[in-house]
Amino acid sequence: MANAHWTRRHVLSLADFTPEEYDTVLQTAASFGEVLTRRTKKVPALQGQVITNLFFESSTRTRSSFELAAKRLSADVLNFAAGTSSLTKGETILDTAKTYLAMGTDMMVIRHREAGVPAAIAQEMDRLGTNVGVLNAGDGQHEHPSQALLDLFTLTTLYDPAHPRLEVLKDKKIAIVGDILHSRVARSNIWSLTASGAEVHLAGPPTLLPKLFADFVKVDPPNPATAGNPPPLDRKLFIHWQLEPALQDADYVMTLRLQKERMTSHLLPSLREYHLQFGITEERLKLCKPNVKVLHPGPTNRGVEISSEVMDSPKFSLISQQVTSGVAVRMALLYLMGSGRS
Amino acid sequence: MANAHWTRRHVLSLADFTPEEYDTVLQTAASFGEVLTRRTKKVPALQGQVITNLFFESSTRTRSSFELAAKRLSADVLNFAAGTSSLTKGETILDTAKTYLAMGTDMMVIRHREAGVPAAIAQEMDRLGTNVGVLNAGDGQHEHPSQALLDLFTLTTLYDPAHPRLEVLKDKKIAIVGDILHSRVARSNIWSLTASGAEVHLAGPPTLLPKLFADFVKVDPPNPATAGNPPPLDRKLFIHWQLEPALQDADYVMTLRLQKERMTSHLLPSLREYHLQFGITEERLKLCKPNVKVLHPGPTNRGVEISSEVMDSPKFSLISQQVTSGVAVRMALLYLMGSGRS
Amino acid sequence: MANAHWTRRHVLSLADFTPEEYDTVLQTAASFGEVLTRRTKKVPALQGQVITNLFFESSTRTRSSFELAAKRLSADVLNFAAGTSSLTKGETILDTAKTYLAMGTDMMVIRHREAGVPAAIAQEMDRLGTNVGVLNAGDGQHEHPSQALLDLFTLTTLYDPAHPRLEVLKDKKIAIVGDILHSRVARSNIWSLTASGAEVHLAGPPTLLPKLFADFVKVDPPNPATAGNPPPLDRKLFIHWQLEPALQDADYVMTLRLQKERMTSHLLPSLREYHLQFGITEERLKLCKPNVKVLHPGPTNRGVEISSEVMDSPKFSLISQQVTSGVAVRMALLYLMGSGRS
Repeated sequence: MANAHWTRRHVLSLADFTPEEYDTVLQTAASFGEVLTRRTKKVPALQGQVITNLFFESSTRTRSSFELAAKRLSADVLNFAAGTSSLTKGETILDTAKTYLAMGTDMMVIRHREAGVPAAIAQEMDRLGTNVGVLNAGDGQHEHPSQALLDLFTLTTLYDPAHPRLEVLKDKKIAIVGDILHSRVARSNIWSLTASGAEVHLAGPPTLLPKLFADFVKVDPPNPATAGNPPPLDRKLFIHWQLEPALQDADYVMTLRLQKERMTSHLLPSLREYHLQFGITEERLKLCKPNVKVLHPGPTNRGVEISSEVMDSPKFSLISQQVTSGVAVRMALLYLMGSGRS
Repeated sequence: MANAHWTRRHVLSLADFTPEEYDTVLQTAASFGEVLTRRTKKVPALQGQVITNLFFESSTRTRSSFELAAKRLSADVLNFAAGTSSLTKGETILDTAKTYLAMGTDMMVIRHREAGVPAAIAQEMDRLGTNVGVLNAGDGQHEHPSQALLDLFTLTTLYDPAHPRLEVLKDKKIAIVGDILHSRVARSNIWSLTASGAEVHLAGPPTLLPKLFADFVKVDPPNPATAGNPPPLDRKLFIHWQLEPALQDADYVMTLRLQKERMTSHLLPSLREYHLQFGITEERLKLCKPNVKVLHPGPTNRGVEISSEVMDSPKFSLISQQVTSGVAVRMALLYLMGSGRS
Repeated sequence: MANAHWTRRHVLSLADFTPEEYDTVLQTAASFGEVLTRRTKKVPALQGQVITNLFFESSTRTRSSFELAAKRLSADVLNFAAGTSSLTKGETILDTAKTYLAMGTDMMVIRHREAGVPAAIAQEMDRLGTNVGVLNAGDGQHEHPSQALLDLFTLTTLYDPAHPRLEVLKDKKIAIVGDILHSRVARSNIWSLTASGAEVHLAGPPTLLPKLFADFVKVDPPNPATAGNPPPLDRKLFIHWQLEPALQDADYVMTLRLQKERMTSHLLPSLREYHLQFGITEERLKLCKPNVKVLHPGPTNRGVEISSEVMDSPKFSLISQQVTSGVAVRMALLYLMGSGRS
């Protein structure tokens, strides 16, 4: 099944996603979300196809989400995890990818702690004349597109579960709180949420915020496909060194995981201090709109970036819905990439 | 397919199992055992269902047994192993379970080194209004119900392979030898074997035996469903500080794995001394009934709790049959839990 | 589907392979290679069968190749990896294998760092009266038969992709370069390539070459089935301490991975020195026939045993084809072993 609005073989970044592409992902995920409510939660869409999870950086939950998405599309899954692999024998990353290509992999889901690795592998797959698709499952501090798309799906299905659309977020106020500077989740979300026409407000300690926003969200030079992308200045983006102006009248609050390593590198005084200044609590949420909802990409540090009461509150928390959305959105991406290949 | 004698969504403990429930598991396992003799050893019973193995404590053989049982029921399997997981990032166990719930898990098989973790997760699944079933695959020194049920299946199918029933063990003498105090296998077996009406004789060094039996087998306070359980005093249970009275005229001997850590904590003088006093050898088995059979939950320490000659003897050893029974019994449990959910 | 030329339940060594057996593997792999070009790359040949990968020595790429081969035959796969296993609890290797046997494994794919382990397990499976097949996926410095068979398939399909036959390599000159002494890949290839009637030329530093060739390739004493094997002296085998005579007019060059441990054991001066003397470069390949092709079992040390330009050259390199052949050949072996069992 081809889709008129989808021609991508790879999903590496949201920097150049068009509104039609966002809506295609949202609508396809909604269809798969319906499948997941059935007793037999499988479709034969990718039967006989091989999807390889190349996780050079380990992540059980993200890998499980992709693995389940692939299995529900009836694909066969190979899991590669760094640590027990040939990499320790000196093989290069590209050689590893080419080995899985030669075995007959149809799509690769790649996570790596260095920015650009999925793009480099995608480029090599194209150069070799293959039609293998590459999905970036998180690369360094660059992007994590499937996370931002599942966040977008979670938010837009609140308005119309069967027909989620990007435009429903227009003029909503969305706060993203925490370590923006080092977050691939924040970066990808900035692209998708500003594309919807929402107002995006970033808040965090000055040491964890980008100095020059234009630098932070600039389109990566090596990607020529993004040349026609509207410049960041067209998008509604605001940076705050305090939490309060970001939360004031917000419709949604996305709080980010605080990497504890930030403290050892002297970017933060203490976890307790961080919680006091930027932790999302019920008290603080009173600044927001009455029906405000909270997102978190997980795994959480309870009592650091988010209080346990907010996290466990069905009234506020969208965290479980995000995880559920993850499977549907990843099914949609793999399905669309697969249809784009033929 | 519903079963008149099965209403459980979770299998956490055998303390409150009824005779009808034991017989339902045994009979269902016997049906699946028949499937396993076919060339195509699969049934479509749980097609499209997702079973997650949450092994916070690693165990390749038990995890493989559950994985195979799930695959033979045509379920999709996700494996979570601690160590490479978000737990190292500070996520709580309940959060991990809720993440797999949100992904669409239908049943969870849980092992943890702390007693009570599977029950706590089951309670949370119920509190959240889900119909996810939880199977305790070993929690601390508390219980390991699927192990005891496979032991029961191994013993009862000796009498009638097609129709194993609890009652065939009535008045049989069964010795359980070794580190009873720290053994979840012993604990679960005590519940099932005494429920059958067998005489259960525990033997081990005084440091590895429960001081007050009533304390050891008492029903866990937090579980209200067990309130109607017959008190332990109704059951035929005996404790011995010497091996000989336990073995005398025994029909079956179950010897337990000796954890080598027990020595470093000064509960044992030496492995050699332990073998001399409590190791199961052909010589020692002469005290038992002529057709005595030996069980061991594996993995074994050859030459410690069991001699190699006994372990490898087709005349005495039921160890391979136990492993084979494991797959059939775990298929039965997952199948019954699945049918109990709808 | 039985095959007139195939009666083996186990594939442990190529020492006693007959020409008919080689051709049966090649022809079966060619049939499966055709399946792999379809969009749905699966056949139901081993549906409901269980294949266990017992990798006591870790290897992600070889395990993935076997896992994919098994899945494309619709088998269920269990992966056992040492390190997280009962072995660390003191269980013996044979006990581990017997546990997987008792669970219902139909075939075992075994890798171990000690020579003879797969043969010992196969012998035990036979002694126990099972019909479980064992495939040696690499044992110490002994053999790696599936690697040599995929190399053979890669070479023979160059002549006729649909009908690869052993005889097409007759009188071809094939150089094997590197650490011959410690290489199970070289050993298995020597058996298959000399069986084809090719001239096999071994080249490497004296410290990494066998002293007495008859010792190196002698048939393993414990295997009575090989008694009728033609003695090595009938085969066209040559040993060189220099690279040039081996490369001169060669049709194919197989270069082996250099284990860096060899240096720490003082068998090599330095990696750079090794590359200067035995590294395969475009310049050196000018000694060979104009259409010479290069093989490497992977993973490679770029710039040590092979230059990056040769490795990445579509003109010279067969490395990707070897990986692709691996899946087809392993499907063929598992399929034939499965048909041989009934």
